[in-house]
Amino acid sequence: MGRRSKSHETVAAGGTRRPTRAITSYDVARRAGVSQSAVSRCFKPGASVSRQMRERVARVARELGYTPNAIARSLITRRSHLAGVLISNLTNLYYPEVLSELSQRFVHRGIRLLLFTLPRESDVDQVLDQFWSYRVDGVISAARLSLQQVAMFDQRQMPLVFFNRYLKERPVNAVCCDQAGGAEMLVTRLAAAGHRRFGIIGGPPDSVVGRERTESAQARLAQLGITAVKTVGGNYDYESGGRGLLELSKAFKGHPDAVICANDVMALGCIDFARTDLRLAVPERLSVVGFDGVAPAGWRSYQLTTLRQPVQRMAEAAVSMLLDCIEEPGRPPERRVFTASLVEGGSARLGDGQSSGR
Amino acid sequence: MGRRSKSHETVAAGGTRRPTRAITSYDVARRAGVSQSAVSRCFKPGASVSRQMRERVARVARELGYTPNAIARSLITRRSHLAGVLISNLTNLYYPEVLSELSQRFVHRGIRLLLFTLPRESDVDQVLDQFWSYRVDGVISAARLSLQQVAMFDQRQMPLVFFNRYLKERPVNAVCCDQAGGAEMLVTRLAAAGHRRFGIIGGPPDSVVGRERTESAQARLAQLGITAVKTVGGNYDYESGGRGLLELSKAFKGHPDAVICANDVMALGCIDFARTDLRLAVPERLSVVGFDGVAPAGWRSYQLTTLRQPVQRMAEAAVSMLLDCIEEPGRPPERRVFTASLVEGGSARLGDGQSSGR
Repeated sequence: MGRRSKSHETVAAGGTRRPTRAITSYDVARRAGVSQSAVSRCFKPGASVSRQMRERVARVARELGYTPNAIARSLITRRSHLAGVLISNLTNLYYPEVLSELSQRFVHRGIRLLLFTLPRESDVDQVLDQFWSYRVDGVISAARLSLQQVAMFDQRQMPLVFFNRYLKERPVNAVCCDQAGGAEMLVTRLAAAGHRRFGIIGGPPDSVVGRERTESAQARLAQLGITAVKTVGGNYDYESGGRGLLELSKAFKGHPDAVICANDVMALGCIDFARTDLRLAVPERLSVVGFDGVAPAGWRSYQLTTLRQPVQRMAEAAVSMLLDCIEEPGRPPERRVFTASLVEGGSARLGDGQSSGR
Repeated sequence: MGRRSKSHETVAAGGTRRPTRAITSYDVARRAGVSQSAVSRCFKPGASVSRQMRERVARVARELGYTPNAIARSLITRRSHLAGVLISNLTNLYYPEVLSELSQRFVHRGIRLLLFTLPRESDVDQVLDQFWSYRVDGVISAARLSLQQVAMFDQRQMPLVFFNRYLKERPVNAVCCDQAGGAEMLVTRLAAAGHRRFGIIGGPPDSVVGRERTESAQARLAQLGITAVKTVGGNYDYESGGRGLLELSKAFKGHPDAVICANDVMALGCIDFARTDLRLAVPERLSVVGFDGVAPAGWRSYQLTTLRQPVQRMAEAAVSMLLDCIEEPGRPPERRVFTASLVEGGSARLGDGQSSGR
């Protein structure tokens, strides 16, 4: 790195360059022949300053490599313009899309995204301290937080918006997708097509969304009087899909008619295992459905029937909700629930939902 | 949010809660009956303070919800403990893995990751200002930067490490993977298996890595005296793979024997298009290879033959290199080049590399 503008270069005895102090508004003021407060005004949005002054100061600032310190400013404005985003599992194909959408929306509002990833959802405690010490303006969490953890946000008056989850026990700000409605609709339409033996591959134990998808499917099956239902656990990864189908086939002593997977990637693993290992045609002999609508679900090899979440609209809603909470701290919690849209791929036989008595 | 600990709650006339001021070290000192400087020492790593004092202060701090302000501290230490990470295309399946690895490695070192995503590599200018104003300690860039942009880092003495790219024109800190060696090896082994008509599906024009992969493959083909080579452009996405194969087939008036794709996702699109639309068996009639080693490349439907980058080792190297640059600013640039490993999947017929005259 080593190179820098002439006026601030220090060459030590041995020829090695030493870092010099950072350029301040006083340096700019001196060089531009104006007062420090004039420099400060030039960088304050909306402050009264002549165009001529603003241009002169901007030119000198560029020459010296000066930029106003957003961090120092945050100590005065009490806004850091940093938003924390907590994501549990970035290698799950759903979350990179969420993160990308959130990131672009924060940029448009001049806010930077401080990223916190968790190898597992249950590792959240270790990162919470960082939110407090970095004084983020607020947090969007796509990871599960306990009641106690949420109380810590309250205590610190730090705005918090849940993404794709919420708390049953108390109202919180949340942007969700209606998992239950989606799962019930899938079951209804699978049942209408004549499927009678249902397998369910659930998410990991600490995934609230996965549990909701699984339990809603089970409840709807019970409501329809379908009792040949087996549920196995999965880990949201590709391998879980194949392993899950194998377990289900053992439990059924044969294969199920339909498998509902708690996310898309498991559904893709399930399809591949069915075709390759069990030599079962999908959807002719086995219907497979997923949740999320990730990109590979749409690939020609799969054409998965799935429930696509409106990720862009959800990201937009989460970012606006967080900003509202930051600007209006006493605001009562709000929950916005979006509806997933059915992608009728080629991996499942679906009947008419209307005729199935809902 | 609205709830907070009793001792700091202010209920306004109408029952609406108003935000109160944040808790400071003085509040903790007063409640704990110690001096503010004692509180400060308790939160300074390595400072001399009795165990009894530390425990008393920690307990009160917990009760009040006090955490030392990392941002304020950064003004004194001149370290923000924030690292910027610049990623161009998060929906490319390769980058979420990189980001996840970087994030976890920064966490272990007490550094937070400020994320900057770019819809396109060429949008970088608009985010550079943010690095300066947030006083990040350094930046890892997996996006392309111009010579002029790199000079701005120098001018501000801000450490910069390139990930998976470098500059030809001048030395920079970079962690790379040997694209050329990998591409040459793939070509050599494909040629050894008897393929004679080669198609190449390249990356987008602004991808340095893509260009390197393409050009190295072309150079090796020329060296081997293979002239039936057609190259088409791609966009790193699934659709580009199918479209690319279609264009190549038109150019060849028939299909090529082998297609080298500049990334995995395009190779998967190419395989699907070959099977579904062209009814070509892979690898019997068409060999397809990719680069990166993303998760779906290993799925049963594909079993892609690809060059897997050692992402974990590269992430570790990039993070240590950045920290070295932060601690030792005058340090001359270093470039660490890793080698990709061949994943011999089932999507290509490969011959013995030894016999093909390299």
